[in-house]
Amino acid sequence: MSRPMPRSVLIIGFGAFGRLMAAHLAPHLAVAVCDPAADPGNTDLQVVQVAGAAAFDIVVLAVPVPAFAGCLRQIAPHLRPGQIVIDTCSIKQEPARLMQQLLPPHVQLLGCHPLFGPQSARPGLAGQRVVLCPLRGTGWRRIAAFLRHRLGLQIVLSSPEEHDRHAALTQGLTHLLAHAMRELAPHPKIRTRSFDLIMEGLDMVGQDAPEVFHAVTRGNPHMPALRQRLAQLLSQG
Amino acid sequence: MSRPMPRSVLIIGFGAFGRLMAAHLAPHLAVAVCDPAADPGNTDLQVVQVAGAAAFDIVVLAVPVPAFAGCLRQIAPHLRPGQIVIDTCSIKQEPARLMQQLLPPHVQLLGCHPLFGPQSARPGLAGQRVVLCPLRGTGWRRIAAFLRHRLGLQIVLSSPEEHDRHAALTQGLTHLLAHAMRELAPHPKIRTRSFDLIMEGLDMVGQDAPEVFHAVTRGNPHMPALRQRLAQLLSQG
Repeated sequence: MSRPMPRSVLIIGFGAFGRLMAAHLAPHLAVAVCDPAADPGNTDLQVVQVAGAAAFDIVVLAVPVPAFAGCLRQIAPHLRPGQIVIDTCSIKQEPARLMQQLLPPHVQLLGCHPLFGPQSARPGLAGQRVVLCPLRGTGWRRIAAFLRHRLGLQIVLSSPEEHDRHAALTQGLTHLLAHAMRELAPHPKIRTRSFDLIMEGLDMVGQDAPEVFHAVTRGNPHMPALRQRLAQLLSQG
Repeated sequence: MSRPMPRSVLIIGFGAFGRLMAAHLAPHLAVAVCDPAADPGNTDLQVVQVAGAAAFDIVVLAVPVPAFAGCLRQIAPHLRPGQIVIDTCSIKQEPARLMQQLLPPHVQLLGCHPLFGPQSARPGLAGQRVVLCPLRGTGWRRIAAFLRHRLGLQIVLSSPEEHDRHAALTQGLTHLLAHAMRELAPHPKIRTRSFDLIMEGLDMVGQDAPEVFHAVTRGNPHMPALRQRLAQLLSQG
């Protein structure tokens, strides 16, 4: 049985990432937005209330991690069977657990972590990477095909556990180092090409919201062991 | 009084950096080489013994840091008044102290740290940076002019103390992190652009000789405090 292609999407949370997504989805799908925390402000898109969520094929959650559980409780009563709910958190284990626990069993679930943001996606989305963690239902296959073929994204399939384990090394460590370097305030007179590259990498995450820093360094369950091992390596190395 | 421009240089230590330097100096100066540790191998350059050092306007030391003091003791009796002796160690405080202590007071001394190596200089020397720490005499001014105008290098003037303080943050930290990452062996499935840049930077120093790692992480007197502060920031951040 071939299911119909999703035609409409509700983006809940209209911050920097919600806006980026809306801009890239609007040429392909009917896009509406909803911001439980604030007025979405000036937009040409349809603005709806959470209570209107059932009208959309896909519901994308683009709220900060600390607001995630509250948002799930708010939308849960308004979802209809077969809808696909997608989260976009930078960590995947805890959001997956919360969606499975707090959303009704009749909705499909997909974990999603775009490995880009407004800054790194400035040249365009083509070739950027996005992690998908299928959690419930098969609707994610059409989403993956859409992201690959229409938006040109590279799909990385993963379990939430595998995502968080690997992301601890990449994201978690990068944010920790960026934070440490900001504290050390290095504007060294002696610069090498390798140091310049490292600082360029660290500067890319330096402008991320504090919630992102908190999520990837504290919300990732693989970070405590990694922090300890790293501190050990740096003091004995 | 205008001193004559130096015309000849003896490079002591014919490892990767000695060879790089010889190749770039040979079009401009009479270059001879001397390797106290090993046969210089296949070279078109003049090969001399340490005892012949007095014949050259400039003597450049390109030996590993652990061999540095021994090399100074070996050449000290063969130097003549007015010669310029230049070291190229990755750290500057300890080599400066050793040169001032072990070489006769009648030679001029210049500390030099090229912020590039065979790998990063592959596209050419133009625009690369070199740190100069004038230690004794004024002959370094002609050397600086030569490096700037003939080789296209950018000169960074510094005291040995300032060099090592800044280099702890750039070089020392970079090598420590490269070492730590090699131990963690990250080939993560989840990669971000910022992580890729950081790894590119770390890979540039990953191939450096163990002596370089040891010098910049142990031989730099500013590293212990920096290591401690960093470990603190990474565990509490």
